[in-house]
Amino acid sequence: MPEPPAKTIEVCFSPALFPYKVTKDEFIVVIIDVLRATTSFCAALDNGAECIIPLASVDEARSYKEKGYLVAGERDGAKIDFADFGNSPAGFKTPLIRGRAIAYTTTNGTQAIELAKGSESIVLASFSNLHAIAGWLKEKQKNVIILCSGWKNTFSAEDAACAGALTLELMKSGSFRMNSDSAYAAYDLWNAAKTDLLGYMQKASHYQRLEKLGNGDQLPFCFELNTSQCIPVWNGEAIKDVAAKPESA
Amino acid sequence: MPEPPAKTIEVCFSPALFPYKVTKDEFIVVIIDVLRATTSFCAALDNGAECIIPLASVDEARSYKEKGYLVAGERDGAKIDFADFGNSPAGFKTPLIRGRAIAYTTTNGTQAIELAKGSESIVLASFSNLHAIAGWLKEKQKNVIILCSGWKNTFSAEDAACAGALTLELMKSGSFRMNSDSAYAAYDLWNAAKTDLLGYMQKASHYQRLEKLGNGDQLPFCFELNTSQCIPVWNGEAIKDVAAKPESA
Repeated sequence: MPEPPAKTIEVCFSPALFPYKVTKDEFIVVIIDVLRATTSFCAALDNGAECIIPLASVDEARSYKEKGYLVAGERDGAKIDFADFGNSPAGFKTPLIRGRAIAYTTTNGTQAIELAKGSESIVLASFSNLHAIAGWLKEKQKNVIILCSGWKNTFSAEDAACAGALTLELMKSGSFRMNSDSAYAAYDLWNAAKTDLLGYMQKASHYQRLEKLGNGDQLPFCFELNTSQCIPVWNGEAIKDVAAKPESA
Repeated sequence: MPEPPAKTIEVCFSPALFPYKVTKDEFIVVIIDVLRATTSFCAALDNGAECIIPLASVDEARSYKEKGYLVAGERDGAKIDFADFGNSPAGFKTPLIRGRAIAYTTTNGTQAIELAKGSESIVLASFSNLHAIAGWLKEKQKNVIILCSGWKNTFSAEDAACAGALTLELMKSGSFRMNSDSAYAAYDLWNAAKTDLLGYMQKASHYQRLEKLGNGDQLPFCFELNTSQCIPVWNGEAIKDVAAKPESA
């Protein structure tokens, strides 16, 4: 009997390219927003938040605030004025979030989630939980589309490199193949960046933007690999960590 | 007196990303479609064609055919049935084209031109005329946006690497700076590809597509650097080689 065909890996370097994806059949969408939504989601869930409710607009976040929810969010890298938290992973190191749902809106990451919502399965990745996500994807054995959140639909170095690192992890398993030039390119960009990841990223435009906004102290953490075992999965209503549970994806 | 700010280089990896470009002010758009529109335009102009009339649709090409124009074009890599020429650079090595205008439509390259038509200045680049284009851009001293034609709005390795090679040439002059993560990424991809360009490109999806269609014999030529001095500039009506003339851009 012939081997079943390998599952495919495709990378979309911007939400604007997601409509042109080449992968058909069933696929899992992996959304990456290293600076900082998907890194911060892991931090919030690791620190005991029950779930994240991703929202596309500031107005929606305001209405959740009025209903008594904790609210986190930023626009253009700066904390939204009425929010309880900005978009820094360090901000979630507080017992205040334990068992709480956090309504969350960001410039890019939550927009990418909004775009992918029609997809069968959505999971969130960052350098923090790279290994955990790779392990989960290997178990699922579905085609993978890695969707880089980018910056206002432009290409972002940090998301592309993280997509490449995840591609490498999946390729090592032997049961995935790259089905797009963008996957090969992400892989090569990761190879160019990995020996001095933080140094490489200091030329990235969003890294510089966040530094100018006074958020520089949190940036090295966003490039630390595998500090989290979190597997944040969108379940149709909210993002929950499915890592510790038997099965809820 | 302070130095004037360096001119910027931005790369759009797909026509779908062009609306999100970050470069403001005056800029020149450099369109790249290595496989094969911009490579073939150089070949046609080098072989004596008077100009190229880029067309977005097959229907427009048909109406030019009926008016007596020579027509070239492909869809999905294959020659259009009523066209005089496909999209192979070798096809233009004929005296039939001398002094003639060629109406031309392709799957990606001529679509990218259509998209950029509102821009102040459009020039076409490929590996063939890389050095000539870099020299022309250095003289112009305007901001540069390199627009990769891609494949049906997806990322193409060959166009990205060529964008990186052009970025490197411009950076060497000292009067340009990269203003986007995509320019850095293109630069890094060129560095990853350049030592074995043809080998690197054999994994590219459009390279494989053209090989399957029996167009493989023309592919190595598309990756030869600086075989042409052609500077194909869109003048609002057609694409003409401005290299040999005093000034017509």
